[in-house]
Amino acid sequence: MHIDINCDLGEGYGAYRMGEDREIIGVISSANIACGFHAGDPQVMARTVRLARDHGVAVGAHPGFPDLLGFGRRNLACSFEEIEAYLTYQIGALQAFCTALQCRLHHVKPHGALYNMAVGNEELVRSMAKTIARIDDSLILVLLAGSDNTRMAALAAEEGVTAVFEAFPDRAYTAGGTLVSRQHPAAVIHDPEQVAARAVRMVTHGVVQTIDGPEIGLHAQTLCVHGDHPHSVQIANSIRHHLEAAGVTIRSM
Amino acid sequence: MHIDINCDLGEGYGAYRMGEDREIIGVISSANIACGFHAGDPQVMARTVRLARDHGVAVGAHPGFPDLLGFGRRNLACSFEEIEAYLTYQIGALQAFCTALQCRLHHVKPHGALYNMAVGNEELVRSMAKTIARIDDSLILVLLAGSDNTRMAALAAEEGVTAVFEAFPDRAYTAGGTLVSRQHPAAVIHDPEQVAARAVRMVTHGVVQTIDGPEIGLHAQTLCVHGDHPHSVQIANSIRHHLEAAGVTIRSM
Amino acid sequence: MHIDINCDLGEGYGAYRMGEDREIIGVISSANIACGFHAGDPQVMARTVRLARDHGVAVGAHPGFPDLLGFGRRNLACSFEEIEAYLTYQIGALQAFCTALQCRLHHVKPHGALYNMAVGNEELVRSMAKTIARIDDSLILVLLAGSDNTRMAALAAEEGVTAVFEAFPDRAYTAGGTLVSRQHPAAVIHDPEQVAARAVRMVTHGVVQTIDGPEIGLHAQTLCVHGDHPHSVQIANSIRHHLEAAGVTIRSM
Amino acid sequence: MHIDINCDLGEGYGAYRMGEDREIIGVISSANIACGFHAGDPQVMARTVRLARDHGVAVGAHPGFPDLLGFGRRNLACSFEEIEAYLTYQIGALQAFCTALQCRLHHVKPHGALYNMAVGNEELVRSMAKTIARIDDSLILVLLAGSDNTRMAALAAEEGVTAVFEAFPDRAYTAGGTLVSRQHPAAVIHDPEQVAARAVRMVTHGVVQTIDGPEIGLHAQTLCVHGDHPHSVQIANSIRHHLEAAGVTIRSM
Repeated sequence: MHIDINCDLGEGYGAYRMGEDREIIGVISSANIACGFHAGDPQVMARTVRLARDHGVAVGAHPGFPDLLGFGRRNLACSFEEIEAYLTYQIGALQAFCTALQCRLHHVKPHGALYNMAVGNEELVRSMAKTIARIDDSLILVLLAGSDNTRMAALAAEEGVTAVFEAFPDRAYTAGGTLVSRQHPAAVIHDPEQVAARAVRMVTHGVVQTIDGPEIGLHAQTLCVHGDHPHSVQIANSIRHHLEAAGVTIRSM
Repeated sequence: MHIDINCDLGEGYGAYRMGEDREIIGVISSANIACGFHAGDPQVMARTVRLARDHGVAVGAHPGFPDLLGFGRRNLACSFEEIEAYLTYQIGALQAFCTALQCRLHHVKPHGALYNMAVGNEELVRSMAKTIARIDDSLILVLLAGSDNTRMAALAAEEGVTAVFEAFPDRAYTAGGTLVSRQHPAAVIHDPEQVAARAVRMVTHGVVQTIDGPEIGLHAQTLCVHGDHPHSVQIANSIRHHLEAAGVTIRSM
Repeated sequence: MHIDINCDLGEGYGAYRMGEDREIIGVISSANIACGFHAGDPQVMARTVRLARDHGVAVGAHPGFPDLLGFGRRNLACSFEEIEAYLTYQIGALQAFCTALQCRLHHVKPHGALYNMAVGNEELVRSMAKTIARIDDSLILVLLAGSDNTRMAALAAEEGVTAVFEAFPDRAYTAGGTLVSRQHPAAVIHDPEQVAARAVRMVTHGVVQTIDGPEIGLHAQTLCVHGDHPHSVQIANSIRHHLEAAGVTIRSM
Repeated sequence: MHIDINCDLGEGYGAYRMGEDREIIGVISSANIACGFHAGDPQVMARTVRLARDHGVAVGAHPGFPDLLGFGRRNLACSFEEIEAYLTYQIGALQAFCTALQCRLHHVKPHGALYNMAVGNEELVRSMAKTIARIDDSLILVLLAGSDNTRMAALAAEEGVTAVFEAFPDRAYTAGGTLVSRQHPAAVIHDPEQVAARAVRMVTHGVVQTIDGPEIGLHAQTLCVHGDHPHSVQIANSIRHHLEAAGVTIRSM
């Protein structure tokens, strides 16, 4: 059994620092690197690609809306043509750092509001897949795992790329298999042991306990962890250790 | 005999239009496309790469300082590490549009203050050449033609790329072979016939008449024309027609 | 009888020009000046305030979303706290140019998506009114005229400012008194005579012909004209001349 | 005897935090608040003005170059007209938050490269003073203390504003009374006791020990402290306590 562990990295900007990148890099197998629109800048990108490469971590692009002020978390009413152009631009920018640093761009995970907009949105997923395929059809598209994995994977395949699905061990799930809104007080689980136990169930049994109690099926090829705070690094470590103790190999998707 | 004619294109941004791109595209053999830092945006880049490709015009990146407000024309005190990262980012972004539109990125011409900063600056030229070589060593670096062509070409070659030199038929030159400052009232020549005659002398004899009267040697592989105004398109047309009448073939560098 | 004619001005940015400000300024009585978020920059603001002042045109702030790339026309999911801060920032910036140039800031007209978001949105109008009142309760808030003028005026008054309502002589109206969407082929009326005739009916009879045929009541204290193109300046001139011929005085709200 | 202690505040941006504002606010008598060009955003400005007001700390504008990526620390080749417009814009934006929060804007301290550019630059100081006077001639202009205080104060007074001079207890000074460049290993003094002792000498005797050993005269009305790190807050506390122990009252300039 194996699983990928991914984390958003390279979210600093100019004089601003964000995230414990040097701590979390040893825990993960895939890095989603911000591309300068919602976070990240060219120097931060260069450093973060190098960091991932030096640790044997797969490098992914983490493109977002052009909204540094809102950290890419606010919905922006863009056309598909705009989103395609924003994806192409950001993926290309990161790709050049990979080429310059002699490593390979491996996947694309949309960020924030753009990621959420794609949940259940066939037309947008199709547009993203097509855009990515035109740049490099070996790039993997990372989407939220849910009840529609099969359908979304088929769509992406039709457009020429492989989709891979991610789950969030530290987030509460509804009975429908979607994330409980962050507005809800119990949306985020903070206890490292509990989060790690959920991660193990996700990987070994393909299930997650919902906020209502019962378990539901949830099939993911990658688990998302966070590196914003020392505490989140601790949770990520806990996840990795429990997975390895359960006989799961951590390797990039 | 042959020469390249290049022009800066894709300088619009969002709702802002700039340049008569659709008029000038039929006159030139190389396009320098803005990459979103001093001008250009992802959609403009997509459209401009497509326009160049559809007209058989070589596509070049035109990276500048991150100063949209100053159109990249103001010196910004950046470190070499910063400039290298800005170049990599912008070249990569444009490259992705080329890949998506199935054409090839052909050259890199720094813009505005960044271009001027490189004039006579061996260390900066070396840094630019090295940066470009790491992304794609078939990319051509475009620099201002002058008395130091040989030295600069050697530097670029040492770092792994070919440098090509450009001249400005509509700009006055000093006896030293440098451009007369734009502050000078006679810095820019506006008469289409005179500009075209200068272009022909540059290509057929490798000389330019200086502001003081005598001709000096000036060796260029590409001539820069402008597409900002209907009048500049007219000048560009005049240059092309006079060159062709003199038996010169227009083709990309 | 009297009416105000307003126009959006100062929409250039850096090297980018937009709008025939010097042509339209002689036609209007109020200028809505962009404040640097969706368009405009500090120098453009200085020049535009001076232009308006020198022509005796009332100076208004035209604040928008922080989306230069989208010209403030795209919905951005902001909180009220964010919008209040954006309004305060932009109004203050423009106010300082007024103070420096010894004229008075007269009104505030939200721009683009922010303006449209306020249509029928009591909570947002209340928030805007309160924000403006805290800066200067003599500032007039400009909103879209419609069937809810009375209610919106009362809300604004409760928060401490006067609301004034604007109509668009060149835009088609629905039977419900709202603007026909720009997606509709007949959304914009291009004939100067027809637009002017509509303006006269709006002012002299307080009515507008709807897209379905019949006239409905529409009460506005200001008419919006455009200065983007030579043709729109011609339309604006036509409106002014027909209004004056009908005995209407043009003066700021 | 009395002195002002000032600190740069409100340097966060969107999701990015910077500075221990809530810790340092109790130590200082003047706050220089970033205005959105090199740091700060409208919401951060609102919160920081409120924080200063609630602690009885004088509110100042801290305008910088439009270079968020470089945190305003890089020289940008701007014209005086550009700088005047940038100052007016930023001061006005902050002023509106003061008005909305019912406090008064008290001073203006240019930031980073703009501040350094003004050192010894009579023409720029004159331009800044004139710009500020046009907005509000009760605003105080903060400049670096040095051997030319008298001349610079006279210039500012001619243009209509009061200049006040600041010293840096934690920075090494040359024999000429200028700051030792940050490139120098001994440019910054880190020991809280030593920094505090220097602050006391500055205030009580108007002198500072130079990097070469001897003391020179240095007359300042305000001392700059930092709030970036817990350690810098500790230094600031040390300065305040030693000054008070020496009988110096801390109050705004």
